[in-house]
Amino acid sequence: MSKLEDIVSLCKRRGFIFPGSDVYGGFAGTWDFGPLGVTLKKKIMDAWWRFFVEERDDMYGVDAAILMNPRTWEASGHTATFADPLVECKECKSRFRADKIAEGISESVTTEEFLATHTKCPVCGKEDWGPIRKFNMMFATHVGAVLPDDDADVAAKNIAYLRPETAQGIFMNYKNVVDTFYPSLPFGLAQQGKAFRNEISPRDFILRDRECSQMEIEYFVRPEAWETEFEKMRELQHEFLEGVMGLPVEMIHEYEVPEGDRAHYSKRTIDYMFDYPNGEEELMGLAYRTDFDLSNIARESGKSMEYRDKNTGEVLVPHVIEPSIGVERLFLAVMSAAYGEDEIGGGKRVVLRLPENLAPYKFCVSPLLKNKPELVAKAREVYGLLREKYGDVTWDDSGNIGKRYRKQDEIGTPKCVVVDFDSLEDDTVTVRDRDTTEQVRVKIDEL
Amino acid sequence: MSKLEDIVSLCKRRGFIFPGSDVYGGFAGTWDFGPLGVTLKKKIMDAWWRFFVEERDDMYGVDAAILMNPRTWEASGHTATFADPLVECKECKSRFRADKIAEGISESVTTEEFLATHTKCPVCGKEDWGPIRKFNMMFATHVGAVLPDDDADVAAKNIAYLRPETAQGIFMNYKNVVDTFYPSLPFGLAQQGKAFRNEISPRDFILRDRECSQMEIEYFVRPEAWETEFEKMRELQHEFLEGVMGLPVEMIHEYEVPEGDRAHYSKRTIDYMFDYPNGEEELMGLAYRTDFDLSNIARESGKSMEYRDKNTGEVLVPHVIEPSIGVERLFLAVMSAAYGEDEIGGGKRVVLRLPENLAPYKFCVSPLLKNKPELVAKAREVYGLLREKYGDVTWDDSGNIGKRYRKQDEIGTPKCVVVDFDSLEDDTVTVRDRDTTEQVRVKIDEL
Repeated sequence: MSKLEDIVSLCKRRGFIFPGSDVYGGFAGTWDFGPLGVTLKKKIMDAWWRFFVEERDDMYGVDAAILMNPRTWEASGHTATFADPLVECKECKSRFRADKIAEGISESVTTEEFLATHTKCPVCGKEDWGPIRKFNMMFATHVGAVLPDDDADVAAKNIAYLRPETAQGIFMNYKNVVDTFYPSLPFGLAQQGKAFRNEISPRDFILRDRECSQMEIEYFVRPEAWETEFEKMRELQHEFLEGVMGLPVEMIHEYEVPEGDRAHYSKRTIDYMFDYPNGEEELMGLAYRTDFDLSNIARESGKSMEYRDKNTGEVLVPHVIEPSIGVERLFLAVMSAAYGEDEIGGGKRVVLRLPENLAPYKFCVSPLLKNKPELVAKAREVYGLLREKYGDVTWDDSGNIGKRYRKQDEIGTPKCVVVDFDSLEDDTVTVRDRDTTEQVRVKIDEL
Repeated sequence: MSKLEDIVSLCKRRGFIFPGSDVYGGFAGTWDFGPLGVTLKKKIMDAWWRFFVEERDDMYGVDAAILMNPRTWEASGHTATFADPLVECKECKSRFRADKIAEGISESVTTEEFLATHTKCPVCGKEDWGPIRKFNMMFATHVGAVLPDDDADVAAKNIAYLRPETAQGIFMNYKNVVDTFYPSLPFGLAQQGKAFRNEISPRDFILRDRECSQMEIEYFVRPEAWETEFEKMRELQHEFLEGVMGLPVEMIHEYEVPEGDRAHYSKRTIDYMFDYPNGEEELMGLAYRTDFDLSNIARESGKSMEYRDKNTGEVLVPHVIEPSIGVERLFLAVMSAAYGEDEIGGGKRVVLRLPENLAPYKFCVSPLLKNKPELVAKAREVYGLLREKYGDVTWDDSGNIGKRYRKQDEIGTPKCVVVDFDSLEDDTVTVRDRDTTEQVRVKIDEL
């Protein structure tokens, strides 16, 4: 098994992540978070919110609806251009993303370029292709009383999309926040929430799924200050990824996106690449988006997106620095960095070296033997004590003590506390460390 | 203005809730949470999660995908029956929910019954109706490479729905959790997340929106224990609503749903009604769902949903008690209970008496005058101190002190701390109470 497969297996075995719609054989590109996955995901998202919003004076949180007025996606360009190149095998009718089945071509491949690669159909092996077509990745639905036998006009008039990014929900509220809170430049609007992309072929576990959670900030700055603010934001991302998420600095690589590959509105973009088990992949992006979005919204809506300086009276349209990260990508980075296998006493062990602030549980409390009521009672007492003090504490009295350690290693619990017969005498317990596997004797009230 | 309109206005004016897609004139049935709304919503959701999941040993969190295998909705009955009665005016083509425009009819109204009410079209005033049709409230979309010119078969084969409730995402993971965590009965699975309903006519602010967040628990019990567990769960809801959310007990009314009005699978349902500003409306529901869902899933999937008792070896299909609450309904209940108007010194004041654990900010810190650098510096010091100690603290140096008090009253800040010239001498500050408007002098280090 590859390391990615090992992680997928651990995630399922221990209740971090299950395939979506599992009892019906799954539903491609969707994943469900189990009890430990929810906890880890929540800790990641809460830590981001604390670091980027709560602990700062210049950030404002928003939480916009997923269903937005379709003019949003006209203004942003998504209706016209948020598309992948789709190709159909005329023989077996299978459909593929052209740039994923042929080597050396890009997303903007033409039919001629694709045919010149002489790619064979991955399903039937034939080489008989239809033309390249643009497949828009936004999920479309109809809002309001549209009936199945309504004509196409009625349906088209009521179309809406599941947002393909949270960013536009932020831009939508720029004016609301400016008119309500009168913030001084620079200031940011932050949002966490779901986004949806109808990937032609979802793959790589949670890296390329159809439904994901994003954490995005639109940071509004004076046009002339963009370079300074970009650098500050760039540094801040490292502080978060390395300092708060505990990702090893050597696994993160900045990739300065060259002009030809950047979105046309971006004057500078850095992709933060991460060494995932299956290779280097994008973990997050930092983009200077100029006034592209606010100007588009102003044009489409006819409303001014100008900002008026409270002190100088100066009027301007702010420019934007955007750090954007996918929760699932960050989740998998955290899991990949933490996942390890080593040997203990001749046996293989799987260990998840999660940072203490992210581990689903800080402590596991056990009685040495589960059939000794006095040990169980004492252990329950210690459990109650630690739960009150730290919150994230789990109880485990299954199997033998070795099995419990192995299980807690796999779910990343930093310390296991075991109550034995000595505990009844001298109020001490054994504390076993996840990373070193060393055991020390500690007074209960010094835990 | 009605009290509901007052609250809507406050929500917009102070940045709690804005209409969705505001710059494009809105998008019916969607609402965006602004900076203060996000904070209040997050505190409500976190408090629920803490109370029902983190502080208990018998609860497991899950977070399932919004897009699920469509067989889910076949099994649950939503594809067939999750529908409202739609009627079209033949004259002006307007469409309405029949039971909302005619008096004294129910959701299961027939065409004959509707015509007998002699209702006139609310738009054109004519009485010329088409037949009653069932309008399914699930939003439909297509997943995978479906192209606009594909025939109906291809589209139908790839249909998927935005989940109309979070509950089915929980049932989907029942087997995953049982196979991974081996919980003992009774135990619960809890989820927070978005749900979508294509309401024909969304209305009443966030009470009947098209996109909402739900918090649901499926609590699995032995069939013979359902009545005891139902009573415990019933009590627990009151502890949460009154003890944690601070809702006045006299505003909550239990409504025992009679047999004829209950869903066919439910043997008992209590609706918790709340005195909203526009009348009594459902705040949450508590239902005994028997083994309806697990049995449907077992039939549809062919997989066993049986539970095996670890100690006795007994095999059974658990029954389910379900408390279900909408975040927006709870949010509006909290706002309604807190909203008040009174007189201070002859002037009208709006005050939001939010419980301390829910108020977006616990403290507001201000310098008495903003143009005195020594006052500002001292106030900044106090601000830093309180932020470190309590987290949720805001800074306000706008306008005069009276205006600041009025603003903080409106957003529900329990205490305003003002630094004045005496503060520089004796390290004391004025602390002003939101509810009594009384001011006391307090030592900074005793705050």
